[in-house]
Order: sequence, then C-alpha cells, then structure tokens
Amino acid sequence: MESKLEELKARLREIRDLEGAAALLAWDQHTCMPAGGALARMRQIALLRRLMHERATDPGLGRLLEELRPYEESLPYDSDEASLIRVARRDYEQAVRIPSDFVARLSEHTSATFQVWREAYPAGDFARVRPYLERTLDLSRRLAGFFPGYEHIADPLIDLQDYGVRAETVRAIFAGLREQLVPLVREIIGQPPLDDACLHQFFPEQQQLAFGNEVLRCLGYDFTRGRQDKSPHPFTTSFSIGDVRITTRVAENALDEALFGSIHEAGHGMYEQGIDEKFEGTPLASGASFSVHESQSRLWENLVGRSLSFWRFFYPRLQALFPDQLGNVSLEDFYRAVNKVECSPIRVGADEVTYNLHVLMRFDFELRLLEGELSVRELPEAWNARMAEDLGIMPESDREGVLQDVHWYNGVIGGMFHGYTLGNILSAQFFEAALRAHPEITGEMEAGNFATLLHWLRESIYRHGRKYTTFELVRRVTGDELRIEPYIRYLRKKYGELYNIPDSNVNQTIA
Amino acid sequence: MESKLEELKARLREIRDLEGAAALLAWDQHTCMPAGGALARMRQIALLRRLMHERATDPGLGRLLEELRPYEESLPYDSDEASLIRVARRDYEQAVRIPSDFVARLSEHTSATFQVWREAYPAGDFARVRPYLERTLDLSRRLAGFFPGYEHIADPLIDLQDYGVRAETVRAIFAGLREQLVPLVREIIGQPPLDDACLHQFFPEQQQLAFGNEVLRCLGYDFTRGRQDKSPHPFTTSFSIGDVRITTRVAENALDEALFGSIHEAGHGMYEQGIDEKFEGTPLASGASFSVHESQSRLWENLVGRSLSFWRFFYPRLQALFPDQLGNVSLEDFYRAVNKVECSPIRVGADEVTYNLHVLMRFDFELRLLEGELSVRELPEAWNARMAEDLGIMPESDREGVLQDVHWYNGVIGGMFHGYTLGNILSAQFFEAALRAHPEITGEMEAGNFATLLHWLRESIYRHGRKYTTFELVRRVTGDELRIEPYIRYLRKKYGELYNIPDSNVNQTIA
Repeated sequence: MESKLEELKARLREIRDLEGAAALLAWDQHTCMPAGGALARMRQIALLRRLMHERATDPGLGRLLEELRPYEESLPYDSDEASLIRVARRDYEQAVRIPSDFVARLSEHTSATFQVWREAYPAGDFARVRPYLERTLDLSRRLAGFFPGYEHIADPLIDLQDYGVRAETVRAIFAGLREQLVPLVREIIGQPPLDDACLHQFFPEQQQLAFGNEVLRCLGYDFTRGRQDKSPHPFTTSFSIGDVRITTRVAENALDEALFGSIHEAGHGMYEQGIDEKFEGTPLASGASFSVHESQSRLWENLVGRSLSFWRFFYPRLQALFPDQLGNVSLEDFYRAVNKVECSPIRVGADEVTYNLHVLMRFDFELRLLEGELSVRELPEAWNARMAEDLGIMPESDREGVLQDVHWYNGVIGGMFHGYTLGNILSAQFFEAALRAHPEITGEMEAGNFATLLHWLRESIYRHGRKYTTFELVRRVTGDELRIEPYIRYLRKKYGELYNIPDSNVNQTIA
Repeated sequence: MESKLEELKARLREIRDLEGAAALLAWDQHTCMPAGGALARMRQIALLRRLMHERATDPGLGRLLEELRPYEESLPYDSDEASLIRVARRDYEQAVRIPSDFVARLSEHTSATFQVWREAYPAGDFARVRPYLERTLDLSRRLAGFFPGYEHIADPLIDLQDYGVRAETVRAIFAGLREQLVPLVREIIGQPPLDDACLHQFFPEQQQLAFGNEVLRCLGYDFTRGRQDKSPHPFTTSFSIGDVRITTRVAENALDEALFGSIHEAGHGMYEQGIDEKFEGTPLASGASFSVHESQSRLWENLVGRSLSFWRFFYPRLQALFPDQLGNVSLEDFYRAVNKVECSPIRVGADEVTYNLHVLMRFDFELRLLEGELSVRELPEAWNARMAEDLGIMPESDREGVLQDVHWYNGVIGGMFHGYTLGNILSAQFFEAALRAHPEITGEMEAGNFATLLHWLRESIYRHGRKYTTFELVRRVTGDELRIEPYIRYLRKKYGELYNIPDSNVNQTIA
C-alpha cells in the first residue's frame, strides 16, 4: 500500500507542478510580459493545461485511487492520508465526468466570448454579446448535465468551486440576509452621508506602495515567500506554498483603491502561505473553497482593515506620510471616510453594506437562468429593476449594469458569485470565533500586533488547506453551522454607530 | 507529405513551448522569485525538462524525420522546410545517442558539483572540488564516446554548442591569434597606462538604468518584445521570438559594469528578436551557435559601444546626466577610460585585448584534459604558469585562478569556451563586412543612428535563426572563411592609436 500511496503522490505532484508552472506563466502575462509575448504565451499555457488535464484524467490514476480505497477507509476521515486520497478522488471524478471534447469546446467558446465582451463592455453593447451569453448558458446547463442526480441544476457547478454547498441552502441563507440588508441600507441612506473627500486627493504612487508594504508586513504577509507587483486587475496566485504572490493597482486620486485592495489580496495570500508545508505538491495545498478563501480576504480587508482599532495604530503613520493631505483630517473622520455607504451601480466599488445586494442579485439570476425561468434576453431589464428595488438606483447603461463583471463572459454561468457573499458571512463568523477565543485581539490590533489573530486563523483554517469542505470547516472552527447572525450583528453595530442609527432599530432586528 | 510535415511542426512546437515555459521559470528564479519558492521551482523546471526530453527522443519523431528525408532531399538546402527537417534531425540524433540514464547521472553530478563549487570558490579551495571535477572530466569523455568516429575527442562536445566546428580547426585559428596577441599586449603594457578613475565615482543606480535604457532603445533593442531586469549574473533568455528578455547588474561605483553589460546582453537580445517570425515555435528560432551569438553581443558591446563614434553621440548625454562626476572629463579621456588595457586575472573583467588570452588558455586546457595530456590535479599549476607566460601576472589564489568560471563546475569540460573567442573574431569579420556594404554606418553612429547596421545584421544573420552552422554563415555573410585578420586589424588600429604604439610595430604584423 505504501508504494501505491507513493505512486499517487508522484502523479499528483506532477499535476500540481504543471499547475504551478502554468500559474507562473499567467502571472507573468499579467505583470511583466511585453506585448510581443502574447501569442506564444497563450500557446504555452494551453499546452501546460492540456498536459495537466491528461494526467488528471488518466485511467491509471483512477485505478490507483480505487486500489487505495480500502486503505483510505481504514484511516480516520481527517487524517492527512485519507484526506489526500479523498480530495484527489473527488478531483478525478469531477474531471473524468466532463468529456475532453466538451472541455475544448467550452474553452474555445469562453475565449471567444471574452474577446467579444472586451469590445461590448466599454460600448455598453449587450446585444453584441447576447448570443454568446446564450450559448454560455446552454453550455453551463450541459456541464451540469454531466453530473446527473443533482437536486438543483446549479449544484454541480457550485461543487466545482465549493464542494458540497447546495443551491437551495444558499438560497435560504441569502433570503434571510436580504431581509436584513435592504432595511439596513434604507436606514443608512436616510441619515446624512459621510464625507470621503479626504481620500480623493493626490497621493503619489510610490508612497502609497511603500505604506501598503509596511501594512502587509505588519499584518503578517511573508515577503520571503511572496511578492507584490502591479497589474490592471489585482489577484493572488500561488506556485507553491513557499511562493504566493499578490498584485495591486494604484489610483493616485483614490487612497482606498491600492490600500484595501492590497489588504484583500494579502488575506488570500496569507491563507495560501499558511497551508501546512507537508501538503506541498498535493491537491491539499490550496484553500478549502472559493467561499472560505473570500472569507479571509474580506476578514483582513474589512473586519481588520476598515476597523477603528486598525486605524488607531496606522493612521498616525499615514498622516506622517501624507501631512499635506491628511494633516487636518482627524482619525474619526478618516475612519468614517473609509466606511462610507453609498448606493452605486458597481459591485467591486461597493461598500460593505450594499456589496452583498449586488451579489445576491447575481446569484438569483444565475439560478433563474439555469432553471429556465429567466432568459438572457430579459436579463438587462431584470438587472435594472432589481437595482431599483434593492438600492434605489438605475444603471446609466449596461456597462454599469449587466456587462460590468467579467465572470459570465469568461466562464460558465453558476457556481461562482455566491462565494463572495458566503465569504462575507463567514468572515464575521470566523472573526467572532477568534475574538471569543482571544478577546485580546482587539487591543493587540490597536498596538499594530496581528500575531494572535493570524496564529489563530492559521491553526484553525489555513494549515488544513483543502482537507475540509466549506461547511465541515465552519463546524470545526465555530462549533456551529454557517449563520448570518454574526455578520448582521457586525454590520448593525458598526454602521449603527457610524450613522447614528437609533438603538431601537438596531435591537429590533437582532436576537 | 504535407500532413507529415504538419505533424513534425506540431511535435517540434510542443518541445519548443515546453522549453519556453522552462526558460520563463528559470528567468523568474533569477529575477523575481522569493527565496521560499526555490525548492518547488527546481522540481517544476526539472519536470518541464523531463517532458521536453521525452518528446525530443520519442521514436515516433525519429520515424517521422526518416519519412521526411526524401522530401527534404527534393528541396534546396537553404529552403525553410529543408532546414527545419535538417536541424530537427540533427537535434534528434544528438539527443537519442545519449542514454537517458546517463543524462540523469550527468545532471545529478553537475548539480552536486555546482553546490560544492559554490562553497569552494569563495574559499579558494580547489582541493575540495577536485574529485568532482575529475568525475566531470570522466563523464565528459564518456559523453564524447556516445558519438564514435570523431577526429578529436572534443569534437562531439563542440558539436552540441556549435555544430560542425572541429577542435583542430579552432586550435589552428587560436595558435595564429595567440601569436599576434601576446606581442600586442606586451607593446601596450610597455606604454603609460590609461586612466579610468572617472568610471569609479558614485553613479546612482536609477540614473544608470535610465541611461542604459535610452542607449538600448537607440541601438534597436525592442522593449515591446522584451524587457530588462536586474539579476546577480546578467543573461539573455527567450520565451518566444516576441519575448526576449535581458538582465543586468549595477555597480554604483563602476559605471562600465551595467552599461557595457547591458549593451552586451542587448546584442544577444537583438539577435533573438531579429529571427524571422515564421520560425516561431520551431528549432530554427534560436541563434546559429554559441559562437555566432557571442559575435553579436561583442559586436554591439565593443565594436559599437566602445567606439569613439558611439561616444561622440552619447557622451554629451551622459555628461548631462552626471555633471558632477563627468563635467570635467573630456570625450577623449572618457573614451580612453572605457578602453583601458590591463593584465588582470579575471576573464569576465578583462579588456578587449587581453580577454582572448584567458579564453585561449581555457580552450587549450580543455583539449589537453580530454586528451589525457593534463590531469585535473595539475590544472591549478598549469593555470598559473600560463597566466605568468601570457599576461605576466600570478593569481593570488585559485579563487582568482582555476575556480573563477562556473562553466566546468556546472556542466561538462569542453565545447563552450572556444565560442567566446570565435565570437570576438567573428564580431570584427562581420562588422568589416557591414562597413564594406554600408560605409555610412560610422557616420550614422556618430548621429545616434544604428538602423543601417541593425538592418544589415538582421538581413545577413539574425533572420536566419539556426538555419546555417557557424562556418556556413560566415561564408554566406562575408564571402570568405572565418579569418582572424579583421579582428587583428581592428585591435591594432584601435589600440595602436589609444596607446600611441609606433606605426612600424603595427605594420610589422599586419599584411
């Protein structure tokens, strides 16, 4: 059995190393590559992905996993080896269900759709990309069809990003969340708006990057096992547990862009850096799921980075760096500025409170599109109606509406968006658990010390990598099911104070 | 036949793309990679190289090349398709002659030797690495042994870098060269030395890099199809014809280091960037040989970059950038400084005149080691004796002697060093041919215009990639065999003027 396990590890390591190599090629494409390298680079990445796919669907791997089944069953569920075999089998079974020619067709179609979207988006021309999106919907349903026996047609698509999470479960969670968020937004909008003009002065790029760097070091992002570069769209990528890189973009007239973007990516980055080294070269060397990953980027970005405790330590430093711009802005006013709530049409620019309403809408639409209850043709109108209903605003064009996010135009419809909001919900639930275990964390944050928090997150979440699914991990870490209450409590308390919302309203909705 | 040719191209493209991917991983390792990524990166590069080797030695490729032989023979020798099949067959036949287990053993041994050398080198401890080098010599001879029927045992090793060049041919060329160089060095050393103190002031890195950048753009290195980064050891690497990158290192107390290093690498870079786009993804998309490649880096570095014409244009710009350091240094004094001749023990720091004596010695030793006429044990003593004989100096320790170059400690003995001097010889022969065709090049250089020269080099050399061997290319470009006379004429004229050597001496040795 020993030798079979070794063979399994060798096969998985090869898949993983091809994945790491392909990821470096993609990182370079987005950060360093001169324009002239584009064509050959696409070819090189496609080749590495093909070699990965061949290995990931090799019948020999399937046989080996079957031979290892009795061994796996003899081990505790959460042992490293049982987990390795279990997760590897899950990946294999997902990969072999999807015929290779379908993979190729889907990949060709999404490339073509992306190209068309790139032109249709700035022009706000949804009609141009509509036939492509209709075919994407068709292919998304066919992709789900390779996994018969599902409860909801979105379930197999969710499984690919977030194994074991069911559409109906998410739908119920999200319905409860929306019931709380819509009135909260109304209450906030009824109050005088906060002023964020102080963020929109001139802040030279080099100084912004230097400050961000100091913040990331302080939080615990390890620059000996990662680095930060600039790219048009910020992302985190990993080539091994010892090389996890993040990117950022800087706006010299918007201090929040690079700063919170960097903390967000560093949250993803610290997760990947915190995986147990013994999982290196295996499929366990990655985050538990898209949702749990997002819970960490949002925890660091919002629950830490947008907290008053965080700024008690960092604001004097920021003021010293930008005396002309911030010398006359108080800590409290700066804290208010970085937490301004505003109903706006763009998801990625949205504040903590309204953000999830953008996501909930997309998730609902995905389910209804897949169910056949909504057509692609009806989508722009439905989008605008829902923005009016939830946020009281109307996008100026489809550029600010249905065309704004690349996801549907560069992949399948379904399986992705829910993770953004599950991530937010989990960020609060995990943070509450951390504070329960270590109430000193708040005080430490005020002293610029994030070690206890990072250590707790590493021990509870990061080191396990992909060993547990989202819900398994939540139960293990919090001793409870996934719940929206911590998140609602967090938003109500923070924004109740920021916007002077009467306590009666706050108490009314919280148990 | 069409479909067989397509299959050949598809197979070769895959090998080439794996090579490009591996090269990017190595580039990143030397320029960007955080320390934590080292272990996984070695694994990833080794995997890509193994996949390359499997494909490069696939019997199916061999059969295909045999089936294409009649087609190749029906085409003109220098047609693209005949050249593609010919060069691919040469690569295949070289690759399959060397057993895979030998490749693995050699690779393991050179890695181990390199590790030991890294420690032995700074300590000047030759004894430590000697047993490794003895085994390297043994493996080098065995490598040659896989190619029976050679004239000299070094020939198969040279063939791997510089196909068709014979050790005896090089030996004869080098003997003639040494006969000229040793007296020239003596004459120069007999004159008052030139002063290069102006180069050894404080020159801030950012300004050096900015100036270098301007120079490279002006010469014709294409930054839309390349980029320059910093690395401990400068190198040029190519991931495709559209993405050819160079690196440099900067010394803030030595202006010549980054400047001439950058021009040198840009010479390699412009060669690779100038290969005909139609060869992309084939084995023709590379330089003709190590020697020809070096001829281009040296042509741009020395015949262009260290010429008075070049500095007539650039020196006022350099002075404007560094007014404190160079404001009182005349053009002529600066020109003398960058061309100072000095007998010193280190090859890579050597001037144009003494440089080749370092190489000639290494080449002679390689032949004698391979012939069994010199033992590894005798090497340090032989080294020091030869330095005394040729340059009149004695290395202070083996660190400045036999340990200084990594080549023998990171590969085989034989096949490499001759290329540095053949490159120098060729640089002058090619440059003379360029001036014969376009006498206006000198005047253009004085106006900062290098377009005619670059165009001529592209048309004559670069665009052909690997289509021709070194000697084929020389004949094609110059209408003559490889000859040392242009190089000797160049050195005699330039250094005769710089050092005021009486004309009688100059005329005495030149036909």
